Amino acid sequence: MKEHMKLVKNAAGRMVPEKINGEPAIPYKGVGKYIPEGKKHAVTIKSCANFPDDGNKQVESLKQALINCGLKDGMTISTHHHFRNGDLIANIVFDIAHELGVKNLRWFPSASFPCHEHLIKYLEDGTISHIEGSMNGALGRFCSHGKMSKTAILRSHGGRYQAVQDGEVKIDISIIGAACADPFGNANGLYGQSASGLLGFALADSEYAEKVIVVTDKMVEFPCVPWQIQGNYVDYTVLMDKVGIPEKIISGTTKITKSPDRLLLAELTAKFCDVTGIIHDGFSFQSGAGGTSLAVGEYFKSIMKERGIKARFARGGSNKYLVSMLEEGLVDYILDGQTFDLDGVRSMADNPGHVWTSPFTSYNYHGKGNFAQLVDVVILGATEVDVNFNANVVTHSDGLLLHGIGGWQNCLFSKTVILPVPLFRDRIPIITDEVTTLCGPGELIDVIVTERGIAINPLRTDLIEKVKDSGLPIKTISELKNEAEEICGKPVKPKTGDDIVAAIKWVDGTIIDVVRKVVE
Amino acid sequence: MKEHMKLVKNAAGRMVPEKINGEPAIPYKGVGKYIPEGKKHAVTIKSCANFPDDGNKQVESLKQALINCGLKDGMTISTHHHFRNGDLIANIVFDIAHELGVKNLRWFPSASFPCHEHLIKYLEDGTISHIEGSMNGALGRFCSHGKMSKTAILRSHGGRYQAVQDGEVKIDISIIGAACADPFGNANGLYGQSASGLLGFALADSEYAEKVIVVTDKMVEFPCVPWQIQGNYVDYTVLMDKVGIPEKIISGTTKITKSPDRLLLAELTAKFCDVTGIIHDGFSFQSGAGGTSLAVGEYFKSIMKERGIKARFARGGSNKYLVSMLEEGLVDYILDGQTFDLDGVRSMADNPGHVWTSPFTSYNYHGKGNFAQLVDVVILGATEVDVNFNANVVTHSDGLLLHGIGGWQNCLFSKTVILPVPLFRDRIPIITDEVTTLCGPGELIDVIVTERGIAINPLRTDLIEKVKDSGLPIKTISELKNEAEEICGKPVKPKTGDDIVAAIKWVDGTIIDVVRKVVE
Repeated sequence: MKEHMKLVKNAAGRMVPEKINGEPAIPYKGVGKYIPEGKKHAVTIKSCANFPDDGNKQVESLKQALINCGLKDGMTISTHHHFRNGDLIANIVFDIAHELGVKNLRWFPSASFPCHEHLIKYLEDGTISHIEGSMNGALGRFCSHGKMSKTAILRSHGGRYQAVQDGEVKIDISIIGAACADPFGNANGLYGQSASGLLGFALADSEYAEKVIVVTDKMVEFPCVPWQIQGNYVDYTVLMDKVGIPEKIISGTTKITKSPDRLLLAELTAKFCDVTGIIHDGFSFQSGAGGTSLAVGEYFKSIMKERGIKARFARGGSNKYLVSMLEEGLVDYILDGQTFDLDGVRSMADNPGHVWTSPFTSYNYHGKGNFAQLVDVVILGATEVDVNFNANVVTHSDGLLLHGIGGWQNCLFSKTVILPVPLFRDRIPIITDEVTTLCGPGELIDVIVTERGIAINPLRTDLIEKVKDSGLPIKTISELKNEAEEICGKPVKPKTGDDIVAAIKWVDGTIIDVVRKVVE
Repeated sequence: MKEHMKLVKNAAGRMVPEKINGEPAIPYKGVGKYIPEGKKHAVTIKSCANFPDDGNKQVESLKQALINCGLKDGMTISTHHHFRNGDLIANIVFDIAHELGVKNLRWFPSASFPCHEHLIKYLEDGTISHIEGSMNGALGRFCSHGKMSKTAILRSHGGRYQAVQDGEVKIDISIIGAACADPFGNANGLYGQSASGLLGFALADSEYAEKVIVVTDKMVEFPCVPWQIQGNYVDYTVLMDKVGIPEKIISGTTKITKSPDRLLLAELTAKFCDVTGIIHDGFSFQSGAGGTSLAVGEYFKSIMKERGIKARFARGGSNKYLVSMLEEGLVDYILDGQTFDLDGVRSMADNPGHVWTSPFTSYNYHGKGNFAQLVDVVILGATEVDVNFNANVVTHSDGLLLHGIGGWQNCLFSKTVILPVPLFRDRIPIITDEVTTLCGPGELIDVIVTERGIAINPLRTDLIEKVKDSGLPIKTISELKNEAEEICGKPVKPKTGDDIVAAIKWVDGTIIDVVRKVVE
């Protein structure tokens, strides 16, 4: 059962707890309003005197490595999600913990996937106390139904780096699965059967965890180059038969949509960017790996070719479509945070213009700026948007927590944020009076593109001016909402109890909203 | 005048102070004996909210950047030495400080060069209180003669990283000169008129300084790739006409010696490595950029070609000779800490096998291992060696402090350490009863090669066994010392006073020795 929580209203008007799992929590204060005080997390100083003279840190098994790291009750254990739904490591880690009788672990993944359904039994038997990280599928349902013994905490990719850097989450042991590594611990995701491209989501973990284990199925002789993870942060290395399932590491979702409605969304989005001058020589963009986003990229491509212009950079996740733009000289650089297909992996390995980034460089809000804010336009998704342009990406209209935040919150700092969304899904309107869960404040969301019209945030008077006489179907967001409701009816609010099952952090570590237990 | 210092005998038998410049100092305890406690230095948490939305951190002048950083009396100011004797930045920084009337600054360069003689006037007028970093030429003489108002502290490259990481030296403002940068602060040393290769010596500064300024004479549009320095650590960027003098950045010293004596040293060294099996397929080596070291490399090359073997990696400083080995496939990788010529710069920019490293990966003793210890054989120089294999690299036999430690101490952790040294220089024997200044403990130094014979450290019974019947001129170190003294006479001890002008740190931050004032 969850602890009794005292709630306060945050700057977005949401009721949020002042403590989560016994730790103080800061309510969201508004965009750019919370300025942190204090120092970054400082880990214990190590000495080469306590590490092997010859640099060989290899031990015979992951179990041995975990024992050497002093695995014990109550620790925080981190893993990364570069292997996506093909990850084998996280399940094995907790199998070992269970075998050793260790209890009450906090699992701190950069994201979890359906393959981690295996861990529900450890959440039930107390091996794992709770998850802090995005939950997809079965784990999300488990959490939504209030079955996790503590409160989940969801963070953006940048927020996860911030939390580790700031000492909000102190990682005891980080287990970093790598496609390729050397016995010293240098590692990358570029080569081998489990190639995942890069390992940026594990960067904070390598830097700030007290103990770091690198696990690979391709151990090469020192030096493993490039060292996306630096062995100087690593305590132990382990060679296993298989760290991931290749066909599940590489996502099958990187296909351009064939749905006429989605293609229309993409086309309208691209036209909007063209008409407003967002697509100009030397511009920059980020578009996801979903079907609609990929289609937007293809429309961008044809506009750029037609105009004879190129982009200075595109932010990844990368895929074969983006790689083709790099190879055709339509973008100078891909600044990539995760590769979604083998073309992405190959390009990152071979092309100096395909650069691997990390949540530190790209997204961390508690740094001296980050890359996300330099992007001219970002195309993102949402499960819900409300009439104030607030958006939700973690829960569905039924209240179930089924998605992570990913880099979504971080990308809202781009110069123009566009959400192409269908007006309804399964006859449930996407545009509502108030989002079920607030993930992104409306003031940062500029444009909603639907198949029945485009709504521009009234704050963006510049964009409103530019689309005048463009022939684009510009509407107010209320008009769009009303159209959807005329067709589908007013959406019913999900049935939720009072119990808080998850907290949603803003990029600065404050609590922007909570997710409540769904009553079945 | 120096403060009164209480001295204690350290584990090497040297009298060292318990406090330096008012800060507690730990006497050297022996190799691997001092295990640090405590946490790494934690810098203040920053927020993107306090940095420009568009990521453009460029200000109109270095003076403005220094003012914005709050330059004031008593601060610690750091610079790097990748521009070597062509550096223009450090002098300008202190010109500005002087103009602003700021006093009592600690200058913390990764090394200083003869070009910094300009700063003597600021040491005299109190703008600069003292230097912590290697001093060559005029600054070394100034310090040796007791003219600096506080005590100098000399550290190895790895020790400098360690000191910053551990919070022993807290940098207030770091000024990082870069051949190439973008307005966000991403920077590298690879492109532009002031190309210096890499910027690894500034890594610690970028990570741990409270304020960081990047100064360049080639400002490119974001992103400056590769970002050897990450803009996420940078506060301000400045475009200047010229950050360095190209012909002085690229060292003129990378020429193979033509001296028959030096060539003999090199040949004996290479033969020794061949006979003992140190040169074997997949081995690794580090050899400096001095004339003798370069010749050793060339002998290695011909042995490798003859045997049909290759090295797994060579550690740089890189130069055209090492680059040719990479390009001919005789080494798989160059792991490079500084490029000494334009071939090195070109190779680092173009060849993925020519990898830039940093004192963190290569040398930091307070990490979980480092690269230096993985190297099979390292060839180093010395100004003096004593009968216990202790060696000196900072002072000459006349007591004058004329050199920095560089990576020398860090490299002593290589599997075999060889010092090829002439038996005498200017009729002064190099092998003495006791080194003037102890920089490296004899237990880490394996072989002394001179033109009149090779002495093997008695601790290395394995090597002694291997050279039996090799025909190599093996002698004891006392025999070599005696031979030199028969020719040149016993060397006179330098005339020094009691005043301590500089402290020499060991790789773990403890005090291994001091340098005393030279009486003229």
